[in-house]
Amino acid sequence: MSSLTDVSTHALTEAQQRIQQDLLTALDAFSIPEPLKGAVYHAVMLGGKRVRPALCYATAALKPNTNFAAVRRAAVAIEFIHCYSLAHDDLPCMDNDLLRRGQPTCHVAFGEDTALLAGDILQSMAFEVLGSRLFDQGPAVEAPIILKQMQILATATSKMVNGQVLDLQAEGKHVSQDELENIHRNKTGALISAAIMMAAVTIFNGTDQAIPKLREFGLAIGLAFQVQDDILDIIADTEALGKTAGKDQQVDKSTYPALMGLDQAQAYAEELHAQALQALDYFAEDAAELLKITQFLLKRQS
Amino acid sequence: MSSLTDVSTHALTEAQQRIQQDLLTALDAFSIPEPLKGAVYHAVMLGGKRVRPALCYATAALKPNTNFAAVRRAAVAIEFIHCYSLAHDDLPCMDNDLLRRGQPTCHVAFGEDTALLAGDILQSMAFEVLGSRLFDQGPAVEAPIILKQMQILATATSKMVNGQVLDLQAEGKHVSQDELENIHRNKTGALISAAIMMAAVTIFNGTDQAIPKLREFGLAIGLAFQVQDDILDIIADTEALGKTAGKDQQVDKSTYPALMGLDQAQAYAEELHAQALQALDYFAEDAAELLKITQFLLKRQS
Repeated sequence: MSSLTDVSTHALTEAQQRIQQDLLTALDAFSIPEPLKGAVYHAVMLGGKRVRPALCYATAALKPNTNFAAVRRAAVAIEFIHCYSLAHDDLPCMDNDLLRRGQPTCHVAFGEDTALLAGDILQSMAFEVLGSRLFDQGPAVEAPIILKQMQILATATSKMVNGQVLDLQAEGKHVSQDELENIHRNKTGALISAAIMMAAVTIFNGTDQAIPKLREFGLAIGLAFQVQDDILDIIADTEALGKTAGKDQQVDKSTYPALMGLDQAQAYAEELHAQALQALDYFAEDAAELLKITQFLLKRQS
Repeated sequence: MSSLTDVSTHALTEAQQRIQQDLLTALDAFSIPEPLKGAVYHAVMLGGKRVRPALCYATAALKPNTNFAAVRRAAVAIEFIHCYSLAHDDLPCMDNDLLRRGQPTCHVAFGEDTALLAGDILQSMAFEVLGSRLFDQGPAVEAPIILKQMQILATATSKMVNGQVLDLQAEGKHVSQDELENIHRNKTGALISAAIMMAAVTIFNGTDQAIPKLREFGLAIGLAFQVQDDILDIIADTEALGKTAGKDQQVDKSTYPALMGLDQAQAYAEELHAQALQALDYFAEDAAELLKITQFLLKRQS
């Protein structure tokens, strides 16, 4: 393992510890009856890479003296949305997955009805957190900024669902690279971009050149993340992934390795990472945190 | 049928036509891939009483020269949330209902996976609509007002899910009247109150006495609505209801008639209506529209 990977892994570990604490604080602020409460905590607290919160924090680090409460709320909200999507994705009528992050999936542990409702409530809880004063110590963030965060989150969440439908429709069919990119820009790219843009609107105003640069970065890193996911599904084993490996091939899913071969897919992932890094040039050394995470995502093994 | 009922039915018909048009306009503004698009339109456009939008409009009618675009968006958003909850409620892992509004339920018509995703996307679409410029003709509504609408909607949506869990937990058990009220204040009351409060924050500022009065009205009418629903499940037939009648007794659900007997439940519904009307006294003749809907809800047969 290169020292670069060590550094970037460390950066993500810090973000993971921070978000783990904030997720717990946020969950504890809600009053949820059992057994739903158990299912919601199960869906959220099992771990995972927490890539979206990490991107949120690292984007905020572009500018010192940021109102960090609004960024912390955005990180929690986006992770709630991600966890809702996983709980629903794993349901028998969807992917019918039994294992997630090395643990029984939500419906295996709590039943289908409760897992469904856990996903449902995590979505509205995400918007509740975003509109709350959670973590606030100073004055309230201006309403137009919070409103923009909500708009970004809502739009990305809808896109994610559209992407899931496109993905299901593509199973067993030959799709072009353009079609595959459209699926993933919606399915995973939208939420990854949203993590970046929710922090971006908190620290930059609309006229700043930084916003389009971060949009560019988000698009590239979002797609790179998915290409890497497809590759790992083939080359990693179930234990390292914490979810069932080889699942894509089993259900004849359209993936980048299936479309272009494994070597080409790996080259494409690196090309997308280069694009992402190029977009960060604009920020020079301010982008140190974003750079670390980008490196981590390229080198990750799970 | 009394002339009073005629008038109030007419008031609701007007609201129904208005919301039907606005729901269609809103849906058409989204780009959704098939088969999800069909399922979303199916879930939303089949009809229903549209009580929540009607309450939203009638609340806005308390004050002339309201920025009506924000109220129309709120009405669409709240109906999207209601329709998402029905699509998920009807799923096999929940109530396993085959019939809704006299038509096949969403999962019967489109499959479980698509019905699940239709409910999911309707939730984020609700927040998208709320944060959009849909229906705007004049200047944009101030961000703090839209933010308040979003907070109200998100909180009510979470409460609705909590209420569903409490309701499922209560099946086959003896519950007290307090417990039953707690279930229904969450399960149906929260969203009905939200319909009123989302319009209220658009037209009144926070210091106005009108807000607590409308909160009081919302609580009473929300609970009255549920008591009446329980009664109709017993006395109406499947054709009039457009959904399977007698379902509550089949699954041994906790209902007001089961708890206190049919006569007592009917008396309680009238008492709650009286409370609702009393809260409207504050607005004198300005509450004409809210009054008509309150009358309709008391007299409804389905």
